[in-house]
Formats: sequence, C-alpha cells, structure tokens
Amino acid sequence: MIKVVFFDLDDTLVDTSRLAEMARRNAIENMIVHGLPVDFDTAYSELMELIREYGSNFPHHFDYLLRRLDLPYNPKWVAAGVIAYHNTKFAYLREVPGARKTLLRLREAGYRLGIITDGNPIKQWEKILRLDLGDFFEHVIISDFAGVRKPHPKIFRKALKAFGVKPEEAVMVGDRLYSDIYGAKRVGMMTVWFRYGKYANAELEYREYADHEIKRLEELIGVLEREEGSNKEVHPAGR
Amino acid sequence: MIKVVFFDLDDTLVDTSRLAEMARRNAIENMIVHGLPVDFDTAYSELMELIREYGSNFPHHFDYLLRRLDLPYNPKWVAAGVIAYHNTKFAYLREVPGARKTLLRLREAGYRLGIITDGNPIKQWEKILRLDLGDFFEHVIISDFAGVRKPHPKIFRKALKAFGVKPEEAVMVGDRLYSDIYGAKRVGMMTVWFRYGKYANAELEYREYADHEIKRLEELIGVLEREEGSNKEVHPAGR
Repeated sequence: MIKVVFFDLDDTLVDTSRLAEMARRNAIENMIVHGLPVDFDTAYSELMELIREYGSNFPHHFDYLLRRLDLPYNPKWVAAGVIAYHNTKFAYLREVPGARKTLLRLREAGYRLGIITDGNPIKQWEKILRLDLGDFFEHVIISDFAGVRKPHPKIFRKALKAFGVKPEEAVMVGDRLYSDIYGAKRVGMMTVWFRYGKYANAELEYREYADHEIKRLEELIGVLEREEGSNKEVHPAGR
Repeated sequence: MIKVVFFDLDDTLVDTSRLAEMARRNAIENMIVHGLPVDFDTAYSELMELIREYGSNFPHHFDYLLRRLDLPYNPKWVAAGVIAYHNTKFAYLREVPGARKTLLRLREAGYRLGIITDGNPIKQWEKILRLDLGDFFEHVIISDFAGVRKPHPKIFRKALKAFGVKPEEAVMVGDRLYSDIYGAKRVGMMTVWFRYGKYANAELEYREYADHEIKRLEELIGVLEREEGSNKEVHPAGR
C-alpha cells in the first residue's frame, strides 16, 4: 500500500529548464546592451559550454564568461547580466502545469507528500517558498545535506526514514530516469517516470526501472488508483 | 576651475541606508513567518550586531544568524530571509531626493561627472544600472579594484587620472567626512560634505576638511556657481 509520494523538484514540480534558459538569454542580451562587445550567439554558446563544464550552480558564470571571451573584467557587464538573470528568473518561475492541482488531489486522497531533490538547499527552498508549495510537503530532503546526490541510495533511505515508511509504501515521481527512477528503484520504491522537459528522451538505458510513465502530472492520480486496485486483488484487506 | 564633479554612491546618490534597514527587517519577519522560533527584536538586534562585526557585504548573514541564535541550520529559514531581503531591496531602491535632477543640471552646465565608491563592484554597478544612472558618468571608480578603500589617496588619484585632470579641477561630493571629504581633501580636491543620512552627525573631527556643506543635493549647483564666481575675481580669464 502506497502511503507516501515523493517528488523531484526541478522539471517535475517547478519548470526550471525553461526559466533558466530564458534567464540566461536575457542576461546576455542585457550585457550586450551595456556594452559587451560580442554578438549574442557567440556569447550564449560560450555561456552554455561554461555551464556544462562548471555546473549550473557555479556562482561565477558571468565573470568566467568574460575570461573565456578574452575580455577584461568589467563589473558593469557582470551586473547587467546578474540583474537581467534575476529579473527573468522570478518572472518565469512557475509550477509545471498541473502540479498544484495534483498535489492537492493527492493530499485529499490521504497521501503524505515529500520532496527529494539535489541542488543548493537555499535555492531549492527559494523556489518552493516563492511558489507557495511548502505547505503540501511534510519533509523536503535535499541531497547536499546528506553529502551525496541522487541516485545514491542514502538520500532515498533518508527520505523513507523521515516518514517512517518502508520502500514498498513509497513512490518516487521524477523527470530523470537515472537519478530519480533508477535511484528510487534500487532501494525498492515504486517509480513513476514523468516524461517531461529536456530529459524526456534521455537516459533511456534506465527505462526498465520505471514502473510507470506519465506525460502529464494529472495522470499520477489514475496510476496510483490502478496500483491500489491491483494491490487489493492480491491482498483483499486493501488499505 | 572645476571641470569634474565626483560623487560617492551610497547615501549620496542612492538611498542605501534606508533600503538596507527595510530589507533586513522584512527578512527577519519572513523568517519568523516560516517558523524561525525567535522574537523579532532578538533576531533583529543579533543580525545588526553580526553586520557590525562582519560588515554589510559578508555573504552569510542569515546562516550565521542561526548559529548565533543557537538554532540548527535550516535552509528554509535562510531562503525565507533571502527572498524577503531581495524583494524589499528592489522595492526600496531609489535615488537620494534630487539626485537625477542635479546630475542633469551639472551636465547641462558642462561638468564632467564621475563616481568614486567603495564596495562590491558588481553590487555597486547593480544599483547604478537599476536606477539608470550610468549614462551620466564618464568613469565609475570602485575601490575594490584598486585594492584600497577610501580615504586612501590612491583611489582619488586613480579617479583624477581617469579624467586627466588636476586635483584643483575636481570636486568630491559625499556623505562621509572621513572617507569622502578627508580623503579627497588630502589629494587637493575641493570638497562638498553632503550632510545626509546616518552620517549627518558623525566623524565631525574631520569637518575642517569640508570646503562646503549642503543638506540637499540641489544646493550643489549654487555652491559651484559661487566657486566659479570667486575664481573669476582672482583669474579674470575665467573658464
């Protein structure tokens, strides 16, 4: 019997990829408006390469961009990038379609909810609080605290322990086959791959670990109802 | 003959003190809304003490606040503080009354304008760009670049060199008697103490270095006109 539904955060509940792309584009545009002597495509592709190499949480993207473009350090350009990045980020910060509606229906149906996410804890909480999603969740487990990242089993076991449930009483919902689905399945949870965003066709070598696939979050309710139904056939006592 | 007018930034052109106070108060309030188990006065006075000890540009105010209050680290509380701080900061970011009007009149009168400021270069540029003040200034000199802070003569000499003028051809306008007025006077500039904000009655031991005192920025035009007038008497060629 499923008691707890865990969600990944980025591109599962919060539309992060689109937000980040729009914010980065606007940052480059504003740097050029304030005198960055490079064309948009050159600067943008250099920035994307930099992010691939250093990761999206690297705090010096714009400084390093200038170095990579062989330009002198200019705090005005960096500030122009930072301003536009932040303004855009807040403007585009929104839930994945149907997220809040689905969370509400799950709570009505009696499920307990949690988040299991990687990333900078303060930035992850910032998204949760800005979207007012915090009240839906009993526990938010952020990997940096545990010193490991998904798919490491430790982070999933930590989440199960926080709720005091067994793996078979929990389901993990996430957009990444490797970190979310393979990770959760390895500790024995039920898994639902949310086929959405830039990983919708990636990491397919881990597809076998997904018990279910959905393309819209609203489908989750039906998936869980069918699971409960099939469980009832096997264990007539049901829930 | 005065050719260049230099301004300090914080509390001379940008109303920084009020902005920072409102932002810090709102940060504490939002941390409490999200569960920080401390009353407002205790948390706020602890934060102010922390800022006095570590400086206002220290990047871990809210983390350290939790430590000082003997509370466990909680990224949710830190995020709540960060969100409220930033929202408030942008909401209260505004020019010192009359700043833009005065800059415009100075430019119309033929003066070249510069900024000489301490602080984090990116944050200083962020204020300049968000208030759209950048176009008024030929050069913005930020001390962290030179490796010294005001009142060190190096930063003022660097500013004079950027404009290619002699000390007696420049005036420094700022709210701090020590860093702005004493600093500029030591290299031979004319000085105008802008008696405004939290330093309006501080550092009075350096008052002798101020050639003029004004309480509103608009008075600056009159001060410069009178200076030019008295110069003309001495050097009839005038400007």
